[in-house]
Parts: sequence; structure tokens; C-alpha cells
Amino acid sequence: MFFHVKELQYRSKPDKPDAVYAKKLQEVLGGQFGEISVMMQYLFQGWNCRAEQKYRDMLLDIGTEEIAHVEMLATMIAQLLDKAPVEEQEQAAKDPIIASAMGGMNPQHAIVNGLGASPNDSNGYPWNARYTIASGNLLADFRANLNAESQGRLQVVRLYEMTEDKGVRDMLSFLIARDTYHQNQWAAAIAELEEKEGLVVPSTFSREYEKSDVAYTFMSCSEGTESEQGRWASGPSMDGLSEFRYEAKPVATGQVPKLNSAPGYIHDTPSSS
Amino acid sequence: MFFHVKELQYRSKPDKPDAVYAKKLQEVLGGQFGEISVMMQYLFQGWNCRAEQKYRDMLLDIGTEEIAHVEMLATMIAQLLDKAPVEEQEQAAKDPIIASAMGGMNPQHAIVNGLGASPNDSNGYPWNARYTIASGNLLADFRANLNAESQGRLQVVRLYEMTEDKGVRDMLSFLIARDTYHQNQWAAAIAELEEKEGLVVPSTFSREYEKSDVAYTFMSCSEGTESEQGRWASGPSMDGLSEFRYEAKPVATGQVPKLNSAPGYIHDTPSSS
Amino acid sequence: MFFHVKELQYRSKPDKPDAVYAKKLQEVLGGQFGEISVMMQYLFQGWNCRAEQKYRDMLLDIGTEEIAHVEMLATMIAQLLDKAPVEEQEQAAKDPIIASAMGGMNPQHAIVNGLGASPNDSNGYPWNARYTIASGNLLADFRANLNAESQGRLQVVRLYEMTEDKGVRDMLSFLIARDTYHQNQWAAAIAELEEKEGLVVPSTFSREYEKSDVAYTFMSCSEGTESEQGRWASGPSMDGLSEFRYEAKPVATGQVPKLNSAPGYIHDTPSSS
Amino acid sequence: MFFHVKELQYRSKPDKPDAVYAKKLQEVLGGQFGEISVMMQYLFQGWNCRAEQKYRDMLLDIGTEEIAHVEMLATMIAQLLDKAPVEEQEQAAKDPIIASAMGGMNPQHAIVNGLGASPNDSNGYPWNARYTIASGNLLADFRANLNAESQGRLQVVRLYEMTEDKGVRDMLSFLIARDTYHQNQWAAAIAELEEKEGLVVPSTFSREYEKSDVAYTFMSCSEGTESEQGRWASGPSMDGLSEFRYEAKPVATGQVPKLNSAPGYIHDTPSSS
Amino acid sequence: MFFHVKELQYRSKPDKPDAVYAKKLQEVLGGQFGEISVMMQYLFQGWNCRAEQKYRDMLLDIGTEEIAHVEMLATMIAQLLDKAPVEEQEQAAKDPIIASAMGGMNPQHAIVNGLGASPNDSNGYPWNARYTIASGNLLADFRANLNAESQGRLQVVRLYEMTEDKGVRDMLSFLIARDTYHQNQWAAAIAELEEKEGLVVPSTFSREYEKSDVAYTFMSCSEGTESEQGRWASGPSMDGLSEFRYEAKPVATGQVPKLNSAPGYIHDTPSSS
Amino acid sequence: MFFHVKELQYRSKPDKPDAVYAKKLQEVLGGQFGEISVMMQYLFQGWNCRAEQKYRDMLLDIGTEEIAHVEMLATMIAQLLDKAPVEEQEQAAKDPIIASAMGGMNPQHAIVNGLGASPNDSNGYPWNARYTIASGNLLADFRANLNAESQGRLQVVRLYEMTEDKGVRDMLSFLIARDTYHQNQWAAAIAELEEKEGLVVPSTFSREYEKSDVAYTFMSCSEGTESEQGRWASGPSMDGLSEFRYEAKPVATGQVPKLNSAPGYIHDTPSSS
Repeated sequence: MFFHVKELQYRSKPDKPDAVYAKKLQEVLGGQFGEISVMMQYLFQGWNCRAEQKYRDMLLDIGTEEIAHVEMLATMIAQLLDKAPVEEQEQAAKDPIIASAMGGMNPQHAIVNGLGASPNDSNGYPWNARYTIASGNLLADFRANLNAESQGRLQVVRLYEMTEDKGVRDMLSFLIARDTYHQNQWAAAIAELEEKEGLVVPSTFSREYEKSDVAYTFMSCSEGTESEQGRWASGPSMDGLSEFRYEAKPVATGQVPKLNSAPGYIHDTPSSS
Repeated sequence: MFFHVKELQYRSKPDKPDAVYAKKLQEVLGGQFGEISVMMQYLFQGWNCRAEQKYRDMLLDIGTEEIAHVEMLATMIAQLLDKAPVEEQEQAAKDPIIASAMGGMNPQHAIVNGLGASPNDSNGYPWNARYTIASGNLLADFRANLNAESQGRLQVVRLYEMTEDKGVRDMLSFLIARDTYHQNQWAAAIAELEEKEGLVVPSTFSREYEKSDVAYTFMSCSEGTESEQGRWASGPSMDGLSEFRYEAKPVATGQVPKLNSAPGYIHDTPSSS
Repeated sequence: MFFHVKELQYRSKPDKPDAVYAKKLQEVLGGQFGEISVMMQYLFQGWNCRAEQKYRDMLLDIGTEEIAHVEMLATMIAQLLDKAPVEEQEQAAKDPIIASAMGGMNPQHAIVNGLGASPNDSNGYPWNARYTIASGNLLADFRANLNAESQGRLQVVRLYEMTEDKGVRDMLSFLIARDTYHQNQWAAAIAELEEKEGLVVPSTFSREYEKSDVAYTFMSCSEGTESEQGRWASGPSMDGLSEFRYEAKPVATGQVPKLNSAPGYIHDTPSSS
Repeated sequence: MFFHVKELQYRSKPDKPDAVYAKKLQEVLGGQFGEISVMMQYLFQGWNCRAEQKYRDMLLDIGTEEIAHVEMLATMIAQLLDKAPVEEQEQAAKDPIIASAMGGMNPQHAIVNGLGASPNDSNGYPWNARYTIASGNLLADFRANLNAESQGRLQVVRLYEMTEDKGVRDMLSFLIARDTYHQNQWAAAIAELEEKEGLVVPSTFSREYEKSDVAYTFMSCSEGTESEQGRWASGPSMDGLSEFRYEAKPVATGQVPKLNSAPGYIHDTPSSS
Repeated sequence: MFFHVKELQYRSKPDKPDAVYAKKLQEVLGGQFGEISVMMQYLFQGWNCRAEQKYRDMLLDIGTEEIAHVEMLATMIAQLLDKAPVEEQEQAAKDPIIASAMGGMNPQHAIVNGLGASPNDSNGYPWNARYTIASGNLLADFRANLNAESQGRLQVVRLYEMTEDKGVRDMLSFLIARDTYHQNQWAAAIAELEEKEGLVVPSTFSREYEKSDVAYTFMSCSEGTESEQGRWASGPSMDGLSEFRYEAKPVATGQVPKLNSAPGYIHDTPSSS
Repeated sequence: MFFHVKELQYRSKPDKPDAVYAKKLQEVLGGQFGEISVMMQYLFQGWNCRAEQKYRDMLLDIGTEEIAHVEMLATMIAQLLDKAPVEEQEQAAKDPIIASAMGGMNPQHAIVNGLGASPNDSNGYPWNARYTIASGNLLADFRANLNAESQGRLQVVRLYEMTEDKGVRDMLSFLIARDTYHQNQWAAAIAELEEKEGLVVPSTFSREYEKSDVAYTFMSCSEGTESEQGRWASGPSMDGLSEFRYEAKPVATGQVPKLNSAPGYIHDTPSSS
């Protein structure tokens, strides 16, 4: 069960309204790697957790924190929208550089949301649950989480660069720091699991059932051999079980497919004879 | 530019048709972590690559290989659908266990696709481009790739467990082995980049602009302290720059939000006075 | 069966083209609470109606009227797009306030639709059938309808405020009036049903099967007690069957969840021992 | 900011696993009127609230409670999936009625989620943010909320009828009771606002700008006059400002539309002359 | 404006309920090539029509007829759902072939729609407006229409094969005949336009601006030369302006792409030096 | 299997960056009729092909070529985004006409993609697999392909008109020419199949099962008789099997629908008695 306190986790107050920036900021609220995504991802991973309780507890800790980040961003966006679209037009009239850079606020912020935040991204595309990854295999999922925090911090940093508003930047600097921690956190959790399970997910599938002769080979399906220079093309494999190989000219070994005719009641293209 | 050869990369032929399994197998063709996703992801990362040419080359190598995996799976599914839905009904009639386990084929396989594969997942939900991650920051994206290969191998393994068909299993054992390599590959590429850039993405954002006092702290937003037992709660941080801290009772430090009234032309709830 | 007459239900003609306003006006054509939504919602409620014929007849009456509203809006948008994007650029060049306020027309209006209306919202997001509510329970659905007409009138009013074009405003004043009637209509239909069935949907589920001790209690899951001041926190309940109660400190009464391990063939995180 | 306690708000434990019912139960977790929808809807309405603080507080109270309902349902679904799909097949083999009624579990529950809940509906369609209504006008939004709780209780009741499992029914009886309260709550809040503002949303738009002669008229756009028998066709209007009228043969008063040719650079169908 | 008569365009009554077939039949109601698609497509093409009035009139004629087809299918589906899911289970228990063929009804038909039709396809995926094609160029759009009627008739025919119910088949035989006419109709309209404009859409773009040396060449980008045997590989081109050519070994003539580094504030992968 | 060469199929290099045009150009990369659509459509039609091998070979030829078109467009867009958004602002400041015409770049090009192309359309809406048509009936599908190439060439032509950049126009003139060929190609393939099968898809369904009396009749469901003037209203039908007829006043011949009550456990509106 959950409880709410009225104070935000951290201060969220812009120096002045900016409806166009509000549109952009929606990306890290309702975009693929926005706060709603990590909130839902960590909570569902926690609720579905069939492993050690410390993982469940940790996932619900961080999932609960992310609800607070959603709250901070929604609050910030609502304040950035204060008095739009009037403000927007007057300000633009004074300064053509600002005007041209704007590209307009999101019309739904006014028409649909009455100057409120919405669970959409910076193009107004709605958040959807396919952004939520929860596979039941924690090593796989923690890699999803490390990716989410990497993409997320990258996007927040880009948004930091796009504004001069001190209030906005102050809040973003908090979120950026939390993403620094969360990247460290998932890296630590991954290290802990890899130590037990090894590199390859899932670790529980017997290696004898895989086609082992292609399990450590880079296949160069394109012209050129620049790709041979990487760590992935030679030396010991990262799981410590084999050596990387580089195959410059991979060969197709499968059949030339020839499908049977469809039965008559399917009414595919009739046989030609 | 691209060229096609008629042979499949690896043999793709079921022992016998199985329309219900065809529906399930769609997951790793057109699902979030199916072969279409990695094909598009690696190709777009390659085409957008502004970094060293060896990364571009490598991405296009593997992206091109993934088109061949899409081809193998589409071919397999079309063959699994041979003679459906008649076959399905007769077989089911003989064996109630099979019948009950089936849960029916995907109706669109017959009505819409005429016994062909489609770019949808195992629930018939269409593949969409939000599954494609290409941020321009390769360390972030390679983590997305490692995750994709982890989720992908996990799903293929689960599908391997769900069939006894030797032909299907043979093809899956090839895909599983390639996923083993690809997990190793992305782990190697990540190691190479982390050595240069450090752990935290993006590495180019100056740390002085982040709220550094919360950059290494685990915040326990839920009851219980099981989460204190993990590697993420104490000891040196994974980026080597600080020490992990555990905050058992995090405190909200932000304001209690109070939004201004909306202007009259927005027609939000009128002021009460 | 349906028939069409050539005249629009009401005059739909702008004083002059305005491609940017055309983009915004799409919201009440193809958005969540646009005319396509109510058209489909009332028609499907009518076609599925298993209750008294007067409800079916009424639903098909209003559903058929809404097709005419879709027609009026599509016609208006096509006329607002006349001569775009050339018109748009020249006008903008003369007046930087207009220019800055524009934020550009929807590129698909030119590239995809050749200066025609489309069944999308003001961000170009396509109308989809999840906007259509038809549950088979008319009291529930009439509440959905009252909401749709409330959101709809609110959006049309906001759009009225965003233009000075007399022709557009004339047409909107017609739609606003119809929404006034339709809010009254659904309120009347709801009153009629509530008189027969009572307030709570569905009325046919025996109250003895619900956990009655929490059926009239407000639970304050957040700090602060401002929420105690509302009509919902004390006094007789709206269904006339009990008294409202305010629970300032609700208590979690469920178990601490502990899930079983997954079977081996699922390849979730392996047991730790 | 938010905090979590480990106990569920109410007991959530099935008597035995049932993977097929788990699929159905997803509807009230991740469907249009599932718990995720009301959670997001109340939280966003609260965060965006520019009206009296008691409404903000109330919205965040109930929004926070809904997170706990999401938690209960996710936990229930994970337990219903215990040991699937093996359990499912064996049980089905014994009893053909069960077998035929099943129609199979959701394949993604095994392949994608490793026997965990997901934020999707009963057809595996992902929850998306277009289900979230937050307009800034509380009277409009509370009608959305009353509808959501009506559709929600209806769906939970239908799911109650579809199972004999005592543990599941016990939890559903709790949710049904809460929906009883929440219908009462929104009805109370609506009554409070209607008393101040009147029936028609938005109340702040001057009636002189609407085409008043069609603001109280039912238009019978279909054959038959059964629709004349309702409360909506005669008597005083619900807002108390006029009388309902019934127009048996509404007349189209608008123009016959004739659109101008598109400019040449648009390449629409060329003029015929 | 539109008017409704109570009689269906054609009889729509099944011999007996069949909830599983109802699920399949949804494809031609709410699927990509279902009746909602053609209804919306023809209406929007008509409303947006800037060409001769006879095309506008014709499009609105057929668009209006399609609303009647939507009505017939919705009515049929509601009747097929009569008494489900009870009927379904009892029938299944008696006949394992039926049971196994069923694969279950769509759970939303009961939980969400209360035994009514919905605007979704046979997998429960919602109809969306991206299915609607209206480009402003009638020759292009009539080709879209001919395709829609071809895919549509194909799907209805497949559904005809999947049932023995005489009532259902009777209605489908009506729809199939209308699709026969509509294929003829669009073929006629296309012939009329091609006579005026020629084959290539858009006809108004000057041929001198296209790279004419590749405008009539088949490029064999895959191994094998079976594709040389078709009408498209030799002989006069269909537009009568040139000769088809077959290029067995097409050559890439573009540059090897090399992208510039991103500016620092974008935080892409840093330059390696 | 597939192989890649480093050179693009044709030169793809803009004269100078233009972030706003990059947004528009996305339409023909990731829109409904963009290159990703035809790539996927032809490849899936090829992989699923159960007809003569020359069709399979031809489909894979052209499908493989389309991957190269995707590559050219992605490369072009990445180059158009060079140095955005800084470039964009400075240029706009100098020329208010350009500024006003811009309407801003796609914010995700910077925030999400780090100045790279994405598989989305010009409104940022993601490509999805419902754009892919592959029915197993080649005559139906080739009509879909002819439509796709018609809509596609139309869109590319419109985009050609929207830029003065010589480099961009050069590449578009190549794509336009290929679309000229592809329209000719599908017209040729259609002619070949129609000669064998006749006009109506599917040709294999016996005409005796369709309601033949309405198979050649135009039904005028709207007022006015302009639609009588077309080729579709009189003369021999296009399939050569009958005569077109024009029905000025079509009559509804079906029943007035009356649905049965729902069973009690569905909790639809209760019977009124």
C-alpha cells in the first residue's frame, strides 16, 4: 500500500512560464524513457518478483521514488504553462529569435488539458505499456533498467542544455544526480547477479542445446572490415568460456524456401497450371 | 545498398505444421524484443552513427544479419501454418490434451494473411517503431542492445521449451547461439567504451552541474530494510568516484505545490470566491 | 440503413483560410472527445442496445446527428486549408505576432492529405476505437456520454476563444449549443434510469457480496485533511443507503506478498541457494 | 512524495492457480477502465489542480489508494499464473468443459513476463495514456471519474461472475465495495460543483455566444418516434433554464459544400477542363 | 446531413449464437479492411473532394452505404453473442472437435461490451484512423479503394468458409456481391481517370524533373533471374512511354556516407581523439 | 540471407542542413506510405509467397531495393539535422519568412535521437506493422502495392515542391523515377494476373454463392444524381460479365433489429418490467 506527503521530493519551480519548453519537457515525463516508464517498470518488476526479497524490496523502493519524480515533472510542466498561450504570443512578438525557435506549444496543453501536464511525450504521443519491461529474469531486467537510466539521463541532460531557466535547471540537476546513482545502482546489481550466474541470460538453459559453433563468431554481413578492429572480434569472450572469432565471409547454409500451396478454402493466388 | 541470396542463413523447416505454435512464435518475430526490433535498431544506429567508422560498420554487419533472422522466422511460421485451420481441428479432436492446450490459432493468420507470417507479436499486436532505440550515444545504445539480446534469448529459450518439434528446435538452437554471441559482443563493446568514458552516460556532461549530494545515495521509500543488503547500498560506487550510501528515511525537501489559477479563456474550474 | 442529403446541418464556412487553426480544430474532429468519438459511441450503443426500444431509437437519432457534425468539421477544415502552405508563409511574413503564434501547420495536411481534413487530433495522432464506450449497461454508458459532451463542449469553447474568424465562430456556436442540449439530454436520461435503478452501477449485483464495511468510507491516503471538507466525507451517502465516513489513517490489512518460484522451464531468475 | 508499506491494502490470494482467468483479470488492471487508468487519472487531475486545495488533496488521496489497487491486482495475477502453463494443460485434460472454456492463457504471460502480471488488458493490448482524462475543469473531470468507477465496477462484477475461486472473489468484493464508495464520492463532488456552477460545462462561457435556438431541442434524425417518450424530449430542461423540445423532422440549414481547387504544387486531381 | 431508417439494408440474423465466430467476424467490422475503414475512407474522400462534383456525390453515396454495412455487421455480432459465455461452454462440452476449434471467445465481448459488438478486429485490436486513406488525388485514392474492396472481399470469403450457419452465410453473400460491384466500380472510375491522366500518379509533376534513366528499369537486387520472366521486365511500359529493362546486376552509385560529429550540447558519443 | 555494400544506391547529400525539412521528410521514411512500409510489405509478401517462384523472386528483388531507399532517406535526414537546433535559430532570426514557415523541428530529433533519423512519420508518430499488407492473394496484394507506389510518389513529389535544396531534390528525383517504374511494374503484374483470373478478387470463390442481383448495381444512398454520370453507373461491367445498373432510390430490405436481453450474469441494463 502507498502513502503520499504533500511536499515534493525536491523543489520544482521555474523562474518564469515557457509553454514551448513545457512541450519539450514532456519527453522525460511521458516518453519512452520518461519517469512514468521507470515508475511502472520498477513497480511491476517488484510486484512480479519471485526471487530473493531484497530484490523485491529494492525494486519497490526505487519504483516508489519514481512516482515522486513523475509528480515533480507534472508540477513543473503545469507551472511552465501558466498563462499560455497569451504569454507565448506576446513574448514572441518582441523577439523574433525566440519566436522562430519556439515552433509553438503543444495545442493539447490548452485545448485538452487546460494548461496541465499530460502523460504524453514531446510530440504528444501517449505513454503506453509496451515501454514497461518485466520479464521475471532479473539479470535481463536490470540490463533494461541500466539502459533506461542511461537513455533517461541523456535526455534530461539534453533538456538541461535547451533552457536557461534557473529553476528548471535546478530541478533537472537533481534528476540528473539521481540518474547517476541509478546507473551505478543497476551496474552494482548486475555485477552481483553476473557473479552468480555468468554473463549470458538466461543462465539456466543448458548450453548443449545451442548450436555452439556459431556462439562466439562475429559475422561480417557487410562489405569492409573496420568491424574487425573491435574487442568483439578477437580475444577471450566476455563470458570467459571461449574465444571470439571473425568471419569475414559468412555463408548461407539453409535451404532455398519453397512453400506449399494453400488449401482452397483460403483463396490465396490459385495454382498456375 | 543491400543484396539478397536465396538460401536462408540457417535451415528453417518444422517437422510438421502447428498453427498454435505459429501464433506463439510470432513473439520473437514481431514482438518488442523480436528480430524486427533488433534489425531496425542496429540499422538505424548504424545509419545515424556519427562516431568511429568501426562502430558504423559493425552495426550494419549485425543489422544486416538480423534481416536474415527475420526471414528465417517468417519462413518457419508460414510452414507451421500449412493446411491450417483444418489440420488443427482434426488433430485436436483426437487428443483432448492437445486440444485444451491449444487455445486456438491467431484468426488473422487465416483471415488476413492467408497462412502467412505477419509483423505482429504473439497477441497479434503490431510491431511499432517505438521499439527502436537509437539515441546517438553509443554507450547508452549498446546497453539497450545488450538488454535486447538478453530479453530475446530468454524468449527464444522459453519458446524452445514449448515445442517438441525437432525442426523448430534446430532453428531455435541456432538463434539461441547467435544471441549468446550477441550478448558477448555488446558486453565487449560496452567494456571498450566504458574504459574510455567511464560508467555514467553521458560522460560529457560536467558533474559540477548535478546535485552531487544525492548522486550516490540509495533512498528507501518503502518500509523494510532488505534492500540494504545489496551491493548498491554500500561500498565504492561502480564508477569508482564515490561511496554508496543508504538513506533509510528519505525526506521530502521540495515545496508544497500551489498552482496559479488559469486565465479565463481556458475555462478551467472557476475560482470559488 | 442511412441516407445523405447534400446540405450541411448548419453553415460551415470560414471568413478566410488559416492552416494553423485547421490543425488545432482537428482536436474536436478526431480527438478523444471529438465528433468521431461521439458518433461511433452513440451508434454502437444503439446497435448493441438490448434494453427498451426508446433508448435504441434515441441513441441512433443522436448518433446519426453526430455524423453530420463530423461532416461540418471536415468541411470547415478543408476550407481553412485552402491555398496552404503558401498563404501561411506570406501572412506570417507580414506580422511577426501571427508568425510566432502559429507554430506551423500540420505537415501531413499538405503531404498526406492534399489540403484535406483527416481523422486525427490536433497533434496528428489518429483516432482509435478505444475512445468508443459501449458496455451494454446504459446507466454506465450515459455517464460516459455526459462526460463526452462535457469534455467536448469545453474543448469547443476553448477553440472558440482561439480564433477571431466570424465564420468559424458561427459554426462553433452551433456545436456549443448542441452540446448544451446533449449535456441536458444525458442528464435527463441518467435521472430517468437512476430513479429506477438507484445510483450504483450495476444495480443488479447483490450488495451482500460486496465488502460492505468499506463501501462508504473515504480513505485519506495522503497527508493533510483538506479532503475532509467535501460533501463526500460526511452526511448521507448519495445513494441514500448509508452515511459517509472519513478515515484519516487507513491501515493496510492484506498480507505481505511472497510469490512462489517459477518452474524451471520459465527461466526466471534462478533460486539463490 | 510517496511511501510504500509492505502489506497490501487488502488480502489478495487465490485458492488455486488459473492462468486463463489471469488473462481475463488483466482487463481491470490494464484495460481502459482498469486500476492503472484511475490511478493515473486521479493523480494527474490532482497534480494539475488549479482550484481549491481540498480538491487537490482529495484527488491525491484517492489516486494514491488506486496505486494500492494496482498492486493488489498485479499480485493476484502473478499468483494465478503459478506453475502455468503446465498446470493448465493437465487440468484441461481431465475435464473437457474446463478445457473448452479456457481458450488458452495469454502467451505473453509465459514468453514475455515469465508468469508475471503486465500493464495490458484482457486481449494483451497495452495500457496507454489516452485513457487518462484531466481537462483542468473539475466538473467535467468528475463526470469522467463517475463514469470510470461505473464502468470499472461493472467489469469487476462481471469478472466476479466468471470465477468460483473464493480467494479471488474475496478480493473482488473489496474492490466492488470501494467502487460503490467511489461512485458515491464522485456523485457527491459533482453535486457540490453543480450547485455552484449549474449543469452545463463549462459554466464560464457566456450563453449569448451560443446558437440558443438549438440548445434545448432533440433532433430525431432517424425514422420512428420512440425517442419522444423519454424525459429528454419534453418538460423543463435539466439545467432549469428552458424547456425541452422534440423536432421530429430536423432540416439541414447549411450550404451544399463546394471546395476550391488545390494549388498546383499540391498535385491533387487536376481540374477537368 | 444524414438520416437513418430502422430497417437494415439486408437481413442480418444468425441461425444460432456462436461467440467464437463473433470474435472472428470482428475482422471485417473493425479490422484494417473492415467496413469501418471503407466507410471512413469514402466519407473523408468525399468531404475533402476538390474535383468534379460527380466524384464527390459518388463517394458520399458509397460512403453512406458502408455505414449500413457497419450496422449489419454490428447487429450480427451482437446476435452471435446471445447468451455467451454459457452457451459456449455447454456446447463445447458435448463435442470436443467444436471445443478444440473454438479457442475461446474474445473476453472483452463479455467483460467490456456486455455481449455487444465493438470497433475492433479479430484480435481485439482497435480500429484506428491510419486505416483511412484520403490524399486529395483521386486516382491514387481509387487505387486504395480497389485494394480495400479486394482485401475486403477476400476476408469475407474466408469467413464464409469458416461457418456453416445459413443466416450468417446469407448476409455474407450479400456483402460479397456488393464487394464484387465495388471492385468493378473502382476499376471503372480508375479507367476513366487513367484515360485522362495516364498511368503514373501524380500526372501533374513534370517528367523532366525525375531521374529518367531509372524510370523503366527492373533492378534485380537478389540472386536468381526468375523475376526476368514477368511482364514487368521487358516489352513496352504500361504507361506507353518507354520500354521495360531488366538490370541483372544493379550497381550502387551513391557515396559511402560519413556523418559529421554532433555538437557538444547533444552529448552523442564523444569524438575518440 | 542479406548482404550490405557501403555505397548508397544513389547520392544522398543536402546542400545544407535544414532541421525543419528533416521533420517533414520523415513522412516518406516512416509514414504509412514511406519506404519502411514498402520494404516490409514486399519482403513479407515474398517470404509468404506460395505461388510461382518468379513472383517470390520479384518481390524479394524489390523488397531488397527498398531497404536501400530506407538507408538513403535515413542518411539524408541525419545530414539535414547537422548542427540543429543552433543552426535553426540563427537562420530564423535573419529571415522572418523562413522563421514563420518553420514551425519548429521535431523535438525528438534532438532529445531522443541525438540528431539522427527515426522510424516515425512527419508528426513523430511511429511506424507500425498495420501498414504492411500481405494477404497471400497476389492480385489483391499487387493492388495494394500499386496504391502504395501511387501514394508514395505523390508524397515525394509534394516534398520536392517544399524545398529548394538541390542535393535533396536530386535524391528525390531518383526516388520519383523509381516510383514511376514501380507503378508501371505493379500495373504490369496486375495485368498478367487479371488475364488469368479475371477482375474480381478472389477469383476462386464460386459466383453462385453470392447474392448476384446486387453484384452490379450502384446504389445512390445520397440525394442528387451527379453520380449517375460516371463509367460505373452504366455500360458493361469491368469484369465483362454483366451490365452496370444505377439504383436511384435503394430500399432497405432487412429486418428492424430487436436484440434479446442479456443473461443476468452480464449485468446489462435490467429489463424494465
